[in-house]
Amino acid sequence: MTTHPFDQAIALTPCAEGVFQGATSAAYANMVGPFGGLTAATVVNAVSQHPARLGEPVALTVNFCAALADGAFTVRATPVRTNRSTQHWSVDITQGDDPQPVLTATLVTAVPRNTWARNDSPAPAVAPADALPAPRMKPPVPWIGQYDWRFVQGMLPTVWEGQEAEANSLLWVRDAQPRALDLLSLTAMADVFFPRVWLARATRVPAGTVSMTVYYHASAEDLAAESSAWLLAQARAQAFAHGFADQSGQLWSASGRLLASTHQTQYYKE
Amino acid sequence: MTTHPFDQAIALTPCAEGVFQGATSAAYANMVGPFGGLTAATVVNAVSQHPARLGEPVALTVNFCAALADGAFTVRATPVRTNRSTQHWSVDITQGDDPQPVLTATLVTAVPRNTWARNDSPAPAVAPADALPAPRMKPPVPWIGQYDWRFVQGMLPTVWEGQEAEANSLLWVRDAQPRALDLLSLTAMADVFFPRVWLARATRVPAGTVSMTVYYHASAEDLAAESSAWLLAQARAQAFAHGFADQSGQLWSASGRLLASTHQTQYYKE
Repeated sequence: MTTHPFDQAIALTPCAEGVFQGATSAAYANMVGPFGGLTAATVVNAVSQHPARLGEPVALTVNFCAALADGAFTVRATPVRTNRSTQHWSVDITQGDDPQPVLTATLVTAVPRNTWARNDSPAPAVAPADALPAPRMKPPVPWIGQYDWRFVQGMLPTVWEGQEAEANSLLWVRDAQPRALDLLSLTAMADVFFPRVWLARATRVPAGTVSMTVYYHASAEDLAAESSAWLLAQARAQAFAHGFADQSGQLWSASGRLLASTHQTQYYKE
Repeated sequence: MTTHPFDQAIALTPCAEGVFQGATSAAYANMVGPFGGLTAATVVNAVSQHPARLGEPVALTVNFCAALADGAFTVRATPVRTNRSTQHWSVDITQGDDPQPVLTATLVTAVPRNTWARNDSPAPAVAPADALPAPRMKPPVPWIGQYDWRFVQGMLPTVWEGQEAEANSLLWVRDAQPRALDLLSLTAMADVFFPRVWLARATRVPAGTVSMTVYYHASAEDLAAESSAWLLAQARAQAFAHGFADQSGQLWSASGRLLASTHQTQYYKE
């Protein structure tokens, strides 16, 4: 029986072919609705459980259309095109009787193949996670307490007085309650970064992810072979304009392998 | 009357609400099917022409599910959720009687707002486009002849003998036949980079874009205010694994503004 809070939170009950019922989890609540990374992992979980699924995630895009209300939701995962070794999925999440989705997503899956490989993004040289102190912060929202954090650079500002600063973060992160890394937890951790605009401006303007993309560079087997659950996670902003900021990030294993690259655009007010 | 080949190639005829008919263009043909950037621009063009459209592109993801065959295609653009100032679109392209899409896409649009803004990705210092020579290459496929190129770094290998190299490119690009930059041509130019694996390996393995995302940092009005049509375009690979490589890129105006950031995952064989 699965008791890890992450597995409980992303759990889905099949209702019909490609239709799953889920529910928001108090353990992963954010300021409004759940932690977006958890919702992204739930999308991947739906496809993983679909009987027609071919292969593993290669490219995921989730669009957060509206806040998920606390309670039940329905995930619909549809394989729209199946090729010889790749598959294209459309996924959406709805709530109650509202036909308008709160989330839309596309996912490309592929059967992992052994090919020529190269890492063009070596992990930054940093102290190991265990040599760094945990931040002395009381989790301001529940989901933050579900992770173990070790910041090298770019924690939240300690003073919120509008001083402009770089919006770069580099940190170790893992599930607070031990859990082996897999493609689901990797998906969630692609969204652990605080909104870039808070670092850039030291001002708590309303902000949130609108669209997030994850590219997977490791297979389930590769992840199972990693001996540490720590991820080294890096993110930076490239531009802030017209109320949207983009963020580019990388997630490395403790052994230095680039497991995923991730990008998102974030709304911010004013 | 529009005579620019780009506008001819992305032209769509409305058939019903949100349904448009288009056709592939010989002028933008690639090795198999059309230049992917042109197809991405066609997706944005469909949404632009939809009577319910709110605002301008913020985040686009296109998934290339199968090769587009030469000839007619149908674009379906559906506004799945409309908020106060943002809108979420699902778009697909089908051909003939096949219900399986050759392309799926999501697009977030938003009404441009004047907000705090900052460019965290300054343009690399390079010689102006006009000071650089045009490559002496006969376009190997038609779409390449539709653009004017000035490479600073990372053209295709001149010797294809399997020597490994960096997979970074930096170049100036614009429409070969003069055309003012707009959100449609910007979308297309987000895909002008050759497959990273060709640069990395100097081996012509089969390769192609599977999923591409574009984040827009400039409004239509911002683009109209740019006095040069040249774009400074940069791309690099982050990881090659299991037959997929990711690419991250930036597109700056000649005046140094980051107009778009773009990411994609590319299939490669062996």
